[in-house]
Amino acid sequence: MTLRLYSYWRSSSAWRVRLGLALKGLAYEYRAVDLLAQEQFQAAHQARNPMSQVPVLEVEEDGRTHLLVQSMAILEWLEERHPEPALLPPDLWGRARVRALAEHVNSGTQPMQNALVLRMLREKVPGWDREWARFFIARGLAALETAVRDGAGRFSHGDAPTLADCYLVPQLYNARRFGLDLEPYPTLRRVDEACAALAPFQAAHPDRQPDAPPPDRRTP
Amino acid sequence: MTLRLYSYWRSSSAWRVRLGLALKGLAYEYRAVDLLAQEQFQAAHQARNPMSQVPVLEVEEDGRTHLLVQSMAILEWLEERHPEPALLPPDLWGRARVRALAEHVNSGTQPMQNALVLRMLREKVPGWDREWARFFIARGLAALETAVRDGAGRFSHGDAPTLADCYLVPQLYNARRFGLDLEPYPTLRRVDEACAALAPFQAAHPDRQPDAPPPDRRTP
Repeated sequence: MTLRLYSYWRSSSAWRVRLGLALKGLAYEYRAVDLLAQEQFQAAHQARNPMSQVPVLEVEEDGRTHLLVQSMAILEWLEERHPEPALLPPDLWGRARVRALAEHVNSGTQPMQNALVLRMLREKVPGWDREWARFFIARGLAALETAVRDGAGRFSHGDAPTLADCYLVPQLYNARRFGLDLEPYPTLRRVDEACAALAPFQAAHPDRQPDAPPPDRRTP
Repeated sequence: MTLRLYSYWRSSSAWRVRLGLALKGLAYEYRAVDLLAQEQFQAAHQARNPMSQVPVLEVEEDGRTHLLVQSMAILEWLEERHPEPALLPPDLWGRARVRALAEHVNSGTQPMQNALVLRMLREKVPGWDREWARFFIARGLAALETAVRDGAGRFSHGDAPTLADCYLVPQLYNARRFGLDLEPYPTLRRVDEACAALAPFQAAHPDRQPDAPPPDRRTP
Protein backbone atom coordinates (compact mmCIF):
# COMPACT_ATOMS: atom_id res chain seq x y z
CA MET A 1 0.00 0.00 0.00
CA THR A 2 1.31 3.45 -0.97
CA LEU A 3 0.00 6.56 0.79
CA ARG A 4 0.29 9.96 -0.85
CA LEU A 5 -0.94 13.06 0.96
CA TYR A 6 -1.94 16.20 -0.92
CA SER A 7 -1.26 18.88 1.63
CA TYR A 8 -0.35 22.51 2.20
CA TRP A 9 2.04 23.29 5.02
CA ARG A 10 -0.31 25.71 6.76
CA SER A 11 -3.67 24.06 6.06
CA SER A 12 -5.06 23.04 9.42
CA SER A 13 -7.21 20.32 7.82
CA ALA A 14 -4.17 18.73 6.14
CA TRP A 15 -2.24 19.10 9.39
CA ARG A 16 -4.82 16.93 11.22
CA VAL A 17 -4.23 14.10 8.75
CA ARG A 18 -0.44 14.50 8.98
CA LEU A 19 -0.91 14.07 12.73
CA GLY A 20 -2.98 10.93 12.29
CA LEU A 21 -0.40 9.43 9.94
CA ALA A 22 2.50 10.40 12.21
CA LEU A 23 0.82 9.10 15.37
CA LYS A 24 0.20 5.76 13.66
CA GLY A 25 3.77 5.68 12.37
CA LEU A 26 2.75 5.46 8.70
CA ALA A 27 5.12 6.65 5.97
CA TYR A 28 3.65 8.65 3.08
CA GLU A 29 4.66 10.72 0.08
CA TYR A 30 4.08 14.44 0.52
CA ARG A 31 2.55 16.30 -2.42
CA ALA A 32 2.28 20.04 -1.94
CA VAL A 33 -0.75 21.93 -3.27
CA ASP A 34 0.04 25.65 -3.15
CA LEU A 35 -3.15 27.23 -1.82
CA LEU A 36 -1.69 30.75 -2.10
CA ALA A 37 -1.10 30.15 -5.84
CA GLN A 38 -4.69 28.79 -6.10
CA GLU A 39 -3.48 25.36 -7.22
CA GLN A 40 -6.45 23.78 -5.48
CA PHE A 41 -8.73 25.22 -8.17
CA GLN A 42 -6.77 23.71 -11.05
CA ALA A 43 -8.35 20.82 -12.93
CA ALA A 44 -5.77 18.30 -11.69
CA HIS A 45 -6.68 18.94 -8.09
CA GLN A 46 -10.41 19.35 -8.65
CA ALA A 47 -10.38 15.87 -10.17
CA ARG A 48 -9.01 14.63 -6.85
CA ASN A 49 -11.48 16.63 -4.75
CA PRO A 50 -14.47 18.49 -6.18
CA MET A 51 -14.44 20.73 -3.09
CA SER A 52 -11.02 22.06 -4.22
CA GLN A 53 -9.52 21.52 -0.81
CA VAL A 54 -6.70 19.71 0.90
CA PRO A 55 -6.19 17.18 2.36
CA VAL A 56 -6.59 14.38 -0.14
CA LEU A 57 -5.13 11.01 0.79
CA GLU A 58 -4.37 8.91 -2.28
CA VAL A 59 -4.12 5.22 -1.47
CA GLU A 60 -2.65 2.81 -4.00
CA GLU A 61 -3.29 -0.84 -3.36
CA ASP A 62 -3.59 -3.94 -5.54
CA GLY A 63 -3.27 -1.81 -8.70
CA ARG A 64 -6.18 0.43 -7.68
CA THR A 65 -6.13 4.06 -6.60
CA HIS A 66 -8.52 5.40 -3.96
CA LEU A 67 -8.95 9.08 -3.23
CA LEU A 68 -10.01 9.90 0.31
CA VAL A 69 -11.17 13.40 1.24
CA GLN A 70 -12.37 15.29 4.32
CA SER A 71 -10.08 15.12 7.36
CA MET A 72 -12.62 13.36 9.58
CA ALA A 73 -13.42 10.68 6.99
CA ILE A 74 -9.70 10.12 6.34
CA LEU A 75 -8.87 9.83 10.04
CA GLU A 76 -11.75 7.42 10.67
CA TRP A 77 -10.49 5.33 7.74
CA LEU A 78 -6.97 5.36 9.19
CA GLU A 79 -8.36 4.26 12.54
CA GLU A 80 -10.30 1.38 10.99
CA ARG A 81 -7.46 0.31 8.71
CA HIS A 82 -4.58 0.76 11.16
CA PRO A 83 -6.16 0.44 14.60
CA GLU A 84 -2.91 0.74 16.56
CA PRO A 85 -2.05 3.01 18.25
CA ALA A 86 -5.72 3.89 18.69
CA LEU A 87 -6.84 7.50 18.20
CA LEU A 88 -10.30 6.71 19.59
CA PRO A 89 -10.83 5.22 23.05
CA PRO A 90 -12.32 1.73 23.33
CA ASP A 91 -15.55 2.65 25.17
CA LEU A 92 -18.52 4.06 23.27
CA TRP A 93 -19.06 7.05 25.58
CA GLY A 94 -15.41 7.99 25.23
CA ARG A 95 -15.54 7.65 21.47
CA ALA A 96 -18.57 9.96 21.34
CA ARG A 97 -16.75 12.47 23.53
CA VAL A 98 -13.58 12.48 21.41
CA ARG A 99 -15.52 12.80 18.16
CA ALA A 100 -17.59 15.65 19.61
CA LEU A 101 -14.44 17.51 20.69
CA ALA A 102 -12.99 17.09 17.20
CA GLU A 103 -16.24 18.31 15.64
CA HIS A 104 -16.24 21.42 17.86
CA VAL A 105 -13.24 22.40 15.73
CA ASN A 106 -14.03 20.63 12.45
CA SER A 107 -17.55 21.93 11.86
CA GLY A 108 -17.98 24.36 14.76
CA THR A 109 -14.95 26.63 14.48
CA GLN A 110 -12.52 26.20 11.60
CA PRO A 111 -15.02 26.59 8.70
CA MET A 112 -15.78 30.16 9.82
CA GLN A 113 -12.12 31.15 9.53
CA ASN A 114 -11.09 29.33 6.37
CA ALA A 115 -9.33 31.20 3.60
CA LEU A 116 -12.30 31.61 1.26
CA VAL A 117 -14.62 32.91 3.98
CA LEU A 118 -12.04 35.44 5.14
CA ARG A 119 -11.30 36.62 1.60
CA MET A 120 -15.00 37.23 0.92
CA LEU A 121 -15.40 39.19 4.15
CA ARG A 122 -12.26 41.26 3.49
CA GLU A 123 -13.34 42.15 -0.04
CA LYS A 124 -16.73 43.38 1.19
CA VAL A 125 -15.66 45.09 4.42
CA PRO A 126 -11.89 45.76 4.58
CA GLY A 127 -10.43 44.62 7.89
CA TRP A 128 -13.52 42.78 9.07
CA ASP A 129 -12.01 39.35 8.35
CA ARG A 130 -9.61 39.33 11.30
CA GLU A 131 -12.24 40.59 13.74
CA TRP A 132 -14.63 37.89 12.45
CA ALA A 133 -12.01 35.14 12.75
CA ARG A 134 -11.15 36.16 16.29
CA PHE A 135 -14.83 36.16 17.28
CA PHE A 136 -15.52 32.67 15.97
CA ILE A 137 -12.25 31.15 17.20
CA ALA A 138 -12.77 32.63 20.69
CA ARG A 139 -16.33 31.30 20.73
CA GLY A 140 -15.18 27.84 19.64
CA LEU A 141 -12.27 27.69 22.08
CA ALA A 142 -14.41 28.84 25.01
CA ALA A 143 -16.82 25.94 24.40
CA LEU A 144 -13.93 23.57 23.83
CA GLU A 145 -12.20 24.62 27.06
CA THR A 146 -15.37 23.74 28.99
CA ALA A 147 -15.87 20.48 27.12
CA VAL A 148 -12.23 19.35 27.36
CA ARG A 149 -11.80 20.34 31.02
CA ASP A 150 -14.43 17.84 32.15
CA GLY A 151 -12.60 14.61 31.38
CA ALA A 152 -9.15 15.67 30.25
CA GLY A 153 -6.09 13.78 31.38
CA ARG A 154 -2.68 14.71 30.08
CA PHE A 155 -4.38 15.07 26.70
CA SER A 156 -7.93 16.05 25.69
CA HIS A 157 -9.20 12.59 26.56
CA GLY A 158 -7.15 10.59 29.01
CA ASP A 159 -3.39 10.20 28.95
CA ALA A 160 -2.75 9.36 25.29
CA PRO A 161 -3.31 11.51 22.20
CA THR A 162 -6.63 11.08 20.37
CA LEU A 163 -8.41 12.52 17.36
CA ALA A 164 -9.45 15.41 19.58
CA ASP A 165 -5.82 16.53 19.92
CA CYS A 166 -5.31 16.28 16.14
CA TYR A 167 -7.99 18.96 15.80
CA LEU A 168 -7.06 21.06 18.83
CA VAL A 169 -3.40 21.73 18.04
CA PRO A 170 -3.91 23.21 14.54
CA GLN A 171 -6.82 25.31 15.81
CA LEU A 172 -4.67 26.84 18.55
CA TYR A 173 -1.98 27.62 15.96
CA ASN A 174 -4.64 29.48 13.95
CA ALA A 175 -5.79 31.31 17.08
CA ARG A 176 -2.25 32.59 17.63
CA ARG A 177 -1.94 33.66 13.99
CA PHE A 178 -5.05 35.81 14.46
CA GLY A 179 -3.58 37.33 17.61
CA LEU A 180 -6.04 35.77 20.03
CA ASP A 181 -5.27 35.85 23.74
CA LEU A 182 -5.13 32.21 24.90
CA GLU A 183 -5.12 33.07 28.61
CA PRO A 184 -8.80 32.05 29.07
CA TYR A 185 -8.10 28.48 27.92
CA PRO A 186 -5.70 26.96 30.47
CA THR A 187 -6.70 23.34 29.83
CA LEU A 188 -6.29 23.70 26.07
CA ARG A 189 -2.86 25.34 26.53
CA ARG A 190 -1.75 22.59 28.87
CA VAL A 191 -2.81 19.87 26.42
CA ASP A 192 -1.17 21.78 23.55
CA GLU A 193 2.12 21.76 25.48
CA ALA A 194 1.86 18.05 26.18
CA CYS A 195 1.33 17.44 22.45
CA ALA A 196 4.23 19.67 21.43
CA ALA A 197 6.59 17.45 23.43
CA LEU A 198 5.79 14.38 21.29
CA ALA A 199 7.80 13.50 18.16
CA PRO A 200 4.74 12.88 15.90
CA PHE A 201 3.37 16.34 16.74
CA GLN A 202 6.77 17.86 15.98
CA ALA A 203 7.00 16.03 12.63
CA ALA A 204 3.54 17.17 11.52
CA HIS A 205 4.06 20.85 12.36
CA PRO A 206 3.70 23.25 9.39
CA ASP A 207 7.24 24.59 9.78
CA ARG A 208 8.62 21.09 9.20
CA GLN A 209 6.82 20.45 5.89
CA PRO A 210 8.67 20.40 2.55
CA ASP A 211 6.59 23.29 1.17
CA ALA A 212 7.13 25.61 4.16
CA PRO A 213 8.94 28.73 2.97
CA PRO A 214 12.17 29.74 4.74
CA PRO A 215 11.44 31.43 8.10
CA ASP A 216 12.29 34.93 6.81
CA ARG A 217 9.72 34.60 4.02
CA ARG A 218 6.77 33.44 6.12
CA THR A 219 3.84 35.77 6.60
CA PRO A 220 2.67 36.04 10.23
CA MET B 1 -32.11 3.08 28.19
CA THR B 2 -34.04 6.33 27.74
CA LEU B 3 -33.23 8.64 24.83
CA ARG B 4 -34.16 12.31 24.98
CA LEU B 5 -33.41 14.59 22.02
CA TYR B 6 -33.05 18.35 22.44
CA SER B 7 -34.07 19.61 19.05
CA TYR B 8 -35.59 22.48 17.10
CA TRP B 9 -37.98 21.64 14.30
CA ARG B 10 -36.00 23.51 11.65
CA SER B 11 -32.44 22.88 12.83
CA SER B 12 -30.76 20.86 10.11
CA SER B 13 -28.25 19.43 12.60
CA ALA B 14 -31.02 18.16 14.87
CA TRP B 15 -32.87 16.83 11.83
CA ARG B 16 -29.88 14.61 10.95
CA VAL B 17 -30.07 12.96 14.36
CA ARG B 18 -33.86 12.58 14.13
CA LEU B 19 -33.19 10.75 10.86
CA GLY B 20 -30.63 8.47 12.44
CA LEU B 21 -33.00 7.62 15.30
CA ALA B 22 -35.93 7.07 12.93
CA LEU B 23 -33.94 4.92 10.50
CA LYS B 24 -32.82 2.72 13.38
CA GLY B 25 -36.36 2.54 14.74
CA LEU B 26 -35.45 4.00 18.14
CA ALA B 27 -38.09 5.75 20.23
CA TYR B 28 -37.10 8.97 22.01
CA GLU B 29 -38.56 11.87 23.96
CA TYR B 30 -38.62 15.12 22.05
CA ARG B 31 -37.54 18.26 23.92
CA ALA B 32 -37.91 21.48 21.98
CA VAL B 33 -35.30 24.24 22.34
CA ASP B 34 -36.71 27.38 20.76
CA LEU B 35 -33.79 28.84 18.79
CA LEU B 36 -35.85 31.85 17.69
CA ALA B 37 -36.46 32.71 21.35
CA GLN B 38 -32.71 32.22 22.03
CA GLU B 39 -33.36 29.38 24.48
CA GLN B 40 -30.09 27.77 23.40
CA PHE B 41 -28.19 30.54 25.21
CA GLN B 42 -29.97 30.00 28.52
CA ALA B 43 -27.98 28.43 31.35
CA ALA B 44 -30.04 25.23 31.31
CA HIS B 45 -29.13 24.51 27.72
CA GLN B 46 -25.54 25.73 27.95
CA ALA B 47 -25.02 23.21 30.73
CA ARG B 48 -26.02 20.53 28.23
CA ASN B 49 -23.88 21.90 25.42
CA PRO B 50 -21.30 24.68 25.88
CA MET B 51 -21.59 25.45 22.14
CA SER B 52 -25.24 26.51 22.78
CA GLN B 53 -26.49 24.39 19.93
CA VAL B 54 -28.90 21.59 19.19
CA PRO B 55 -28.90 18.63 18.89
CA VAL B 56 -28.11 17.19 22.29
CA LEU B 57 -28.94 13.54 22.85
CA GLU B 58 -29.45 12.74 26.52
CA VAL B 59 -29.03 9.07 27.28
CA GLU B 60 -30.16 7.65 30.62
CA GLU B 61 -28.87 4.23 31.46
CA ASP B 62 -28.15 2.36 34.72
CA GLY B 63 -28.92 5.49 36.73
CA ARG B 64 -26.41 7.60 34.82
CA THR B 65 -27.04 10.41 32.36
CA HIS B 66 -24.82 10.97 29.33
CA LEU B 67 -25.02 14.07 27.16
CA LEU B 68 -23.98 13.56 23.55
CA VAL B 69 -23.40 16.55 21.26
CA GLN B 70 -22.41 17.20 17.61
CA SER B 71 -24.53 15.43 14.98
CA MET B 72 -21.64 13.40 13.58
CA ALA B 73 -20.49 12.16 16.99
CA ILE B 74 -24.09 11.28 17.95
CA LEU B 75 -24.71 9.39 14.72
CA GLU B 76 -21.44 7.45 15.01
CA TRP B 77 -22.44 6.55 18.58
CA LEU B 78 -25.87 5.39 17.37
CA GLU B 79 -24.17 3.29 14.69
CA GLU B 80 -21.83 1.66 17.20
CA ARG B 81 -24.50 1.11 19.83
CA HIS B 82 -27.33 0.05 17.50
CA PRO B 83 -25.60 -1.35 14.43
CA GLU B 84 -28.79 -2.43 12.62
CA PRO B 85 -29.96 -1.22 10.20
CA ALA B 86 -26.48 0.02 9.32
CA LEU B 87 -26.03 3.66 8.27
CA LEU B 88 -22.44 2.99 7.19
CA PRO B 89 -21.54 0.35 4.60
CA PRO B 90 -19.45 -2.66 5.69
CA ASP B 91 -16.37 -2.01 3.52
CA LEU B 92 -13.75 0.53 4.59
CA TRP B 93 -13.65 2.41 1.25
CA GLY B 94 -17.42 2.75 1.32
CA ARG B 95 -17.36 3.98 4.91
CA ALA B 96 -14.78 6.62 3.98
CA ARG B 97 -16.93 7.69 1.03
CA VAL B 98 -20.12 8.00 3.08
CA ARG B 99 -18.38 9.93 5.86
CA ALA B 100 -16.78 12.27 3.31
CA LEU B 101 -20.18 12.97 1.69
CA ALA B 102 -21.64 13.73 5.10
CA GLU B 103 -18.71 16.02 5.93
CA HIS B 104 -19.17 17.92 2.64
CA VAL B 105 -22.36 19.14 4.31
CA ASN B 106 -21.40 19.02 7.99
CA SER B 107 -18.17 21.03 7.87
CA GLY B 108 -18.07 22.12 4.22
CA THR B 109 -21.45 23.75 3.68
CA GLN B 110 -23.87 24.10 6.58
CA PRO B 111 -21.59 26.05 8.97
CA MET B 112 -21.41 28.94 6.49
CA GLN B 113 -25.20 29.33 6.48
CA ASN B 114 -26.02 28.79 10.13
CA ALA B 115 -28.18 31.27 11.98
CA LEU B 116 -25.40 33.09 13.85
CA VAL B 117 -23.23 33.58 10.75
CA LEU B 118 -26.16 34.94 8.77
CA ARG B 119 -27.23 37.29 11.56
CA MET B 120 -23.73 38.76 11.81
CA LEU B 121 -23.54 39.29 8.04
CA ARG B 122 -27.01 40.86 7.94
CA GLU B 123 -26.23 43.26 10.76
CA LYS B 124 -23.06 44.45 9.02
CA VAL B 125 -24.30 44.54 5.43
CA PRO B 126 -28.10 44.42 5.15
CA GLY B 127 -29.25 41.83 2.63
CA TRP B 128 -25.84 40.22 2.19
CA ASP B 129 -26.76 37.15 4.26
CA ARG B 130 -29.02 35.54 1.67
CA GLU B 131 -26.56 36.14 -1.16
CA TRP B 132 -23.79 34.63 1.00
CA ALA B 133 -25.88 31.59 1.95
CA ARG B 134 -26.79 30.94 -1.68
CA PHE B 135 -23.12 31.18 -2.71
CA PHE B 136 -21.89 28.67 -0.14
CA ILE B 137 -24.79 26.26 -0.53
CA ALA B 138 -24.41 26.27 -4.33
CA ARG B 139 -20.68 25.68 -3.96
CA GLY B 140 -21.24 22.80 -1.55
CA LEU B 141 -24.00 21.18 -3.60
CA ALA B 142 -21.98 21.40 -6.83
CA ALA B 143 -19.14 19.46 -5.19
CA LEU B 144 -21.59 17.05 -3.59
CA GLU B 145 -23.37 16.40 -6.91
CA THR B 146 -20.01 15.38 -8.44
CA ALA B 147 -19.04 13.29 -5.44
CA VAL B 148 -22.41 11.56 -5.08
CA ARG B 149 -22.88 10.89 -8.82
CA ASP B 150 -19.82 8.65 -8.94
CA GLY B 151 -21.10 5.75 -6.88
CA ALA B 152 -24.72 6.55 -6.11
CA GLY B 153 -27.36 3.87 -6.27
CA ARG B 154 -30.92 4.64 -5.32
CA PHE B 155 -29.43 6.62 -2.45
CA SER B 156 -26.15 8.52 -2.07
CA HIS B 157 -24.29 5.27 -1.52
CA GLY B 158 -25.86 2.12 -2.88
CA ASP B 159 -29.49 1.15 -2.51
CA ALA B 160 -30.10 1.77 1.18
CA PRO B 161 -30.04 5.05 3.13
CA THR B 162 -26.77 5.96 4.86
CA LEU B 163 -25.37 8.78 6.99
CA ALA B 164 -24.76 10.68 3.73
CA ASP B 165 -28.50 10.90 3.11
CA CYS B 166 -29.12 12.12 6.68
CA TYR B 167 -26.95 15.13 5.81
CA LEU B 168 -28.10 15.64 2.23
CA VAL B 169 -31.86 15.92 2.82
CA PRO B 170 -31.75 18.76 5.41
CA GLN B 171 -29.18 20.64 3.29
CA LEU B 172 -31.47 20.53 0.24
CA TYR B 173 -34.35 21.82 2.39
CA ASN B 174 -32.13 24.75 3.39
CA ALA B 175 -31.20 25.34 -0.25
CA ARG B 176 -34.88 25.66 -1.13
CA ARG B 177 -35.49 28.03 1.77
CA PHE B 178 -32.80 30.31 0.36
CA GLY B 179 -34.41 30.16 -3.09
CA LEU B 180 -31.60 28.21 -4.75
CA ASP B 181 -32.26 26.65 -8.15
CA LEU B 182 -31.72 22.88 -7.73
CA GLU B 183 -31.76 22.16 -11.48
CA PRO B 184 -27.93 21.69 -11.62
CA TYR B 185 -28.04 18.82 -9.10
CA PRO B 186 -30.06 16.01 -10.75
CA THR B 187 -28.46 13.20 -8.73
CA LEU B 188 -29.08 14.96 -5.43
CA ARG B 189 -32.71 15.66 -6.37
CA ARG B 190 -33.25 12.05 -7.37
CA VAL B 191 -31.81 10.78 -4.07
CA ASP B 192 -33.87 13.35 -2.16
CA GLU B 193 -37.04 12.00 -3.79
CA ALA B 194 -36.11 8.42 -2.94
CA CYS B 195 -35.61 9.48 0.69
CA ALA B 196 -38.89 11.40 0.83
CA ALA B 197 -40.76 8.19 -0.02
CA LEU B 198 -39.53 6.44 3.14
CA ALA B 199 -41.47 6.55 6.42
CA PRO B 200 -38.42 7.43 8.63
CA PHE B 201 -37.65 10.45 6.44
CA GLN B 202 -41.29 11.52 6.63
CA ALA B 203 -41.31 11.18 10.43
CA ALA B 204 -38.14 13.25 10.86
CA HIS B 205 -39.27 16.15 8.64
CA PRO B 206 -39.42 19.57 10.38
CA ASP B 207 -43.13 19.99 9.61
CA ARG B 208 -43.91 16.85 11.61
CA GLN B 209 -42.15 17.91 14.81
CA PRO B 210 -44.09 18.87 17.96
CA ASP B 211 -42.59 22.39 17.97
CA ALA B 212 -43.43 23.19 14.34
CA PRO B 213 -45.80 26.14 14.26
CA PRO B 214 -49.07 25.77 12.35
CA PRO B 215 -48.52 26.07 8.56
CA ASP B 216 -50.02 29.58 8.35
CA ARG B 217 -47.55 30.85 10.96
CA ARG B 218 -44.33 29.50 9.40
CA THR B 219 -41.84 31.92 7.91
CA PRO B 220 -40.59 30.88 4.43
